[in-house]
Amino acid sequence: MMEPAPVFADGVDHERLTAQLRFILETDKLKRVLRRNLLVDGSRRENDAEHSWQLTLMARLFAEYAPDGTDIDRVTEMLVLHDIVEIDAGDTFLYDPQHAASQSQREHAAAERLYAILPDDQAKHAHELWSEFESRTTPEARFAKAIDRLAPMLANWHTDGGTWVQFGVTKKQVRDKVAIIAEGSAALGSYAAALIDDAERRGYLTGE
Amino acid sequence: MMEPAPVFADGVDHERLTAQLRFILETDKLKRVLRRNLLVDGSRRENDAEHSWQLTLMARLFAEYAPDGTDIDRVTEMLVLHDIVEIDAGDTFLYDPQHAASQSQREHAAAERLYAILPDDQAKHAHELWSEFESRTTPEARFAKAIDRLAPMLANWHTDGGTWVQFGVTKKQVRDKVAIIAEGSAALGSYAAALIDDAERRGYLTGE
Ligand SMILES: [Ca+2]
Repeated sequence: MMEPAPVFADGVDHERLTAQLRFILETDKLKRVLRRNLLVDGSRRENDAEHSWQLTLMARLFAEYAPDGTDIDRVTEMLVLHDIVEIDAGDTFLYDPQHAASQSQREHAAAERLYAILPDDQAKHAHELWSEFESRTTPEARFAKAIDRLAPMLANWHTDGGTWVQFGVTKKQVRDKVAIIAEGSAALGSYAAALIDDAERRGYLTGE
Repeated sequence: MMEPAPVFADGVDHERLTAQLRFILETDKLKRVLRRNLLVDGSRRENDAEHSWQLTLMARLFAEYAPDGTDIDRVTEMLVLHDIVEIDAGDTFLYDPQHAASQSQREHAAAERLYAILPDDQAKHAHELWSEFESRTTPEARFAKAIDRLAPMLANWHTDGGTWVQFGVTKKQVRDKVAIIAEGSAALGSYAAALIDDAERRGYLTGE
């Protein structure tokens, strides 16, 4: 693990700041975790850090489509942290059932290691936010997950089917993802359904 | 400009959602705006989108170093949007006075075009947040700017001087940036000062 500069700042708890800096240096690796989908211009694969940025932007712009009372600040806090486990666990392709089977175990181990780099109070908070996101037990988590599922659909539609075509994804597989979006946001679920209907018409999706 | 899919979602204001999607597609380009500094592992140059993600992470983790009462949610909202003008204006290297002279004009034109893609209320809000960030008139803007200035210092320190060495940056130039960090956060200003002292000792900075 990369160590922060060996310097002391006046009036700052050195041990605490060092733990925070260690986490920032370690999670810089998120910029090198590649996802399957392309940028919307098709120029290259997207990485997890820039993906996370875009989700926080979408969460703010689409706040009006969240259920009343959803705390959008908490949603964005979740989205900033949600993919950090992939530094250890790697990106798991949404439509790869074999890999997905071991995903949960790998991601839990990653969360244990990575969030523990932070000072205890922040480690606990970050780990709780991630668990909430994964379990979709709150409106915030369900809305965050909806945004996370919608973004690669946009990328796929704008790159002639993208990973849907590349990996022969079926209509049924994509409709399961649409259901998850609808759970977090009726409006975005409705949009995702319309987008998928259009993708079917264009032949981007196979089988049932 | 890339157009959203020509689909209609039930129960959603089509014109409004289309404007929001247009903005998301257009700002996807932020992932392709390259900054001068490298990732902390030195592997490649950083892009503006992943940089923006890291700043929102840092703002949350370092919230305790902001002046009492600073609204960190607003800080992160600012940081998500702050670099979008660089899609048109390009990244202006912090230590390039010639380019910096025309920067303000280019960025204002960029803000005019880009934020106006959004529905009017959101365009106004985004533009105001960006203006606040640039003018550093609030504790939130000063803290956001402090984080934005600190991040490339970390990258430079961890890549054997990075752009300081590459462009022969002077001690005085860097100390001006430290002053901006201290305006936003006494603790982070103190850390940046210690980091720069160490960078001087290592010979990463030249002249006065
Ligand atoms: Ca910046």
